[in-house]
Amino acid sequence: MNVLIWNEHIHEQNNPLVQNVYPDGIHGAIASCFKGMTNVHVQTATLADKEHGLTEEQLAKTDVLIWWGHVAHDQVEDPIVDRVQKRVLEGMGLLVLHSGHFSKIFKRLMGTSCDLKWREADEKERIWVVDPSHPIAEGIGESIVLEKEEMYGEHFDIPVPDELVMVSWFEGGEVFRSCATYRRGNGKVVYFRPGHETYPTYYHEDIRKVIVNCVKWLAPVRRGGPVYGNAKPLETISEK
Amino acid sequence: MNVLIWNEHIHEQNNPLVQNVYPDGIHGAIASCFKGMTNVHVQTATLADKEHGLTEEQLAKTDVLIWWGHVAHDQVEDPIVDRVQKRVLEGMGLLVLHSGHFSKIFKRLMGTSCDLKWREADEKERIWVVDPSHPIAEGIGESIVLEKEEMYGEHFDIPVPDELVMVSWFEGGEVFRSCATYRRGNGKVVYFRPGHETYPTYYHEDIRKVIVNCVKWLAPVRRGGPVYGNAKPLETISEK
Amino acid sequence: MNVLIWNEHIHEQNNPLVQNVYPDGIHGAIASCFKGMTNVHVQTATLADKEHGLTEEQLAKTDVLIWWGHVAHDQVEDPIVDRVQKRVLEGMGLLVLHSGHFSKIFKRLMGTSCDLKWREADEKERIWVVDPSHPIAEGIGESIVLEKEEMYGEHFDIPVPDELVMVSWFEGGEVFRSCATYRRGNGKVVYFRPGHETYPTYYHEDIRKVIVNCVKWLAPVRRGGPVYGNAKPLETISEK
Amino acid sequence: MNVLIWNEHIHEQNNPLVQNVYPDGIHGAIASCFKGMTNVHVQTATLADKEHGLTEEQLAKTDVLIWWGHVAHDQVEDPIVDRVQKRVLEGMGLLVLHSGHFSKIFKRLMGTSCDLKWREADEKERIWVVDPSHPIAEGIGESIVLEKEEMYGEHFDIPVPDELVMVSWFEGGEVFRSCATYRRGNGKVVYFRPGHETYPTYYHEDIRKVIVNCVKWLAPVRRGGPVYGNAKPLETISEK
Repeated sequence: MNVLIWNEHIHEQNNPLVQNVYPDGIHGAIASCFKGMTNVHVQTATLADKEHGLTEEQLAKTDVLIWWGHVAHDQVEDPIVDRVQKRVLEGMGLLVLHSGHFSKIFKRLMGTSCDLKWREADEKERIWVVDPSHPIAEGIGESIVLEKEEMYGEHFDIPVPDELVMVSWFEGGEVFRSCATYRRGNGKVVYFRPGHETYPTYYHEDIRKVIVNCVKWLAPVRRGGPVYGNAKPLETISEK
Repeated sequence: MNVLIWNEHIHEQNNPLVQNVYPDGIHGAIASCFKGMTNVHVQTATLADKEHGLTEEQLAKTDVLIWWGHVAHDQVEDPIVDRVQKRVLEGMGLLVLHSGHFSKIFKRLMGTSCDLKWREADEKERIWVVDPSHPIAEGIGESIVLEKEEMYGEHFDIPVPDELVMVSWFEGGEVFRSCATYRRGNGKVVYFRPGHETYPTYYHEDIRKVIVNCVKWLAPVRRGGPVYGNAKPLETISEK
Repeated sequence: MNVLIWNEHIHEQNNPLVQNVYPDGIHGAIASCFKGMTNVHVQTATLADKEHGLTEEQLAKTDVLIWWGHVAHDQVEDPIVDRVQKRVLEGMGLLVLHSGHFSKIFKRLMGTSCDLKWREADEKERIWVVDPSHPIAEGIGESIVLEKEEMYGEHFDIPVPDELVMVSWFEGGEVFRSCATYRRGNGKVVYFRPGHETYPTYYHEDIRKVIVNCVKWLAPVRRGGPVYGNAKPLETISEK
Repeated sequence: MNVLIWNEHIHEQNNPLVQNVYPDGIHGAIASCFKGMTNVHVQTATLADKEHGLTEEQLAKTDVLIWWGHVAHDQVEDPIVDRVQKRVLEGMGLLVLHSGHFSKIFKRLMGTSCDLKWREADEKERIWVVDPSHPIAEGIGESIVLEKEEMYGEHFDIPVPDELVMVSWFEGGEVFRSCATYRRGNGKVVYFRPGHETYPTYYHEDIRKVIVNCVKWLAPVRRGGPVYGNAKPLETISEK
């Protein structure tokens, strides 16, 4: 399986605090989740790369794309967004993380504003599994506790998730649908809430397990894709 | 519309604290939500009534049944449960409140254990609306805050709700899917989490609004019901 | 309730066959579904109108918008599409009919290609109700038979419907998810498959009932809408 | 993975026609789908076996149970049904085939009548994939055509499926939700419509692929299961 991790990679260069937490970039930390998995081939790409590292060739061979962005959503060029959307509809999996909720590609695939409440106050977050039979929860206990995170609160303006896997509790009084899945065309999409750039969230063992589980669940399904357009009736089709 | 409010009506007779909060019974407090609604005819029934007040005749004319039970689930007789299930499948709406999660009728319609976490610790509850376009949320703000309630926490062992309308936050660190809808046969079911018997929850203005909204949403749909069994092919059916 | 019926209104002017079926336009035929309903105020708008008849003022007072388009989807200007999407997210209902599946507004709200199979062969269509408890099916029997219609077949490239109310059978061997609902922001969306412009489908009694039922179901919910952005914690909020 | 195939095994002994189609029993034909899969261990059980072959020990080690029954649903003893339900809620996958829609275990897990329309008329069936990204459709084209099958038609009185993967078309004018998934407790359930006992459906290459795909999808998820009952608040829990 070919996994491509996309990170806008700006905070890590501008903010010493973030640099200190993620010396190899957020994409580097995420890439390390897959260390030792021989059947997964991981690559990374950033905003500054030519075509943001999302060339036709690169996307064509990508099975699952992971997306982290925050301050530079508008700098992602529209034709590249078109390209990513097209690949999702063709079958590529897409894992959108944290502030990626406001990325062009996520808003494009959802059709809503994807807006939410937020607060930076070093709050405790407790992420509860509400779908115990879902493969994304494999190996995870009842809840994941993060000692300090940014708060994201409802209402989260997304379409009704096809599957709601986790719901977060925050110290200050909010809840949030933290792990949600969607089907779009031949592809699948997961939104997973954690990791604000100033916290070491992507080193947390359970968060890393969930990311790996998401990628497995997002793997494309191999089959003869749908055919669209003018169609012949059944009696004129020669059957095998 | 004919609404029947069923209450096991035991705590109010055994526990002075509950008696003090609900002098007219929990069913009495719920009935008062509909005061002044000329198009709603409200009746009540309790466990001690003949056939628990759920005779064939009574159920036949009931459009929406509201259910509150706690310590006497096992005393509800199986043939009566069969009868209520049959009426739901025929189209009667069913609103299950709070500890009714463990009632025979709710477990029967869900197919799961309907188990959950709980704690009696006078905790603050904040019920968030996560489906802002749902009629059950009409007239309700972003969240309802209850100063003191019993905690119910995930995992709540119910089937995936057809619609998840509200999610609760509790002071002690839990979340809960507090307002969930299901379709069963020609009928609809809502589970709504609040009101522990020792708190004045059913006098809270927003909780009362939600109960009325649920009843409206649960109204039976009038149509020629499905026909089952051996069926003729289309070409032999004379069409209107 | 204010209903606005939008029709591109081109076939009726270019094609004598369509003109003969719909002398008052498709919008005229749809408008007549609401005749005699004193609580519904109906207006119509077409592509040729200034701003396609979808001015800020007009949309601001519209509760439910009905959309029929086919050959001129590309002529609907993007800023108008932005405006309609914004209003749906604010709470306006949207009923998309037949070839409107390829309209800019429907694709925008779905995030997918909305492509499908089709065939013009005067085929029999049988629309089966698969959700008997849904208000959209009120007054409708088990199935609606249309003697001649255009075939639309799976795969229909839409997101998984929040609710699937009807599924069509076509003589030539196809099925189609014909009545599907979605929630987007504070608004609701229904896609309903029938009426090709050359058939008198919008005069069929049951189709007219479904259109009225859809409009009722799409009515906006009145409540304090979600607030987004930086939020204070619960303990700092003065509660009523 | 341990797969247990349960078949009531009556038609094959009473009806020469069925005996001729399935000389090794329907369970034998289904078992042969897994031939050559070294990581799948297949066993079979029938109604006539002691405790119907569904002892505590056997169920405890079963990962996925496949169920085929028709004329003897009532002969399956209630304590055995309790036992199977308990194992599904613990995490065991359950694949219910064809006339198993009326089995006690399926009705128990659904909460509805599970009734439907049917006709034995050697009709053509075309099973359309409506969820192209679902792993159950892996390796399957747009539709599966069965030259002759029993018709099953809507309305099928099941709860709204969590996922609707396939919809059938029948020659005589009906549609049917043919492949539907549900989550119950820690376990997953699939209903898959084909194979009437008098047709060689379980030898059809695509039907066999779907059965194998279903079993893979139904595999239990390994994790610390939910804990129910009285719970301590977060601040008193010592975190790892």
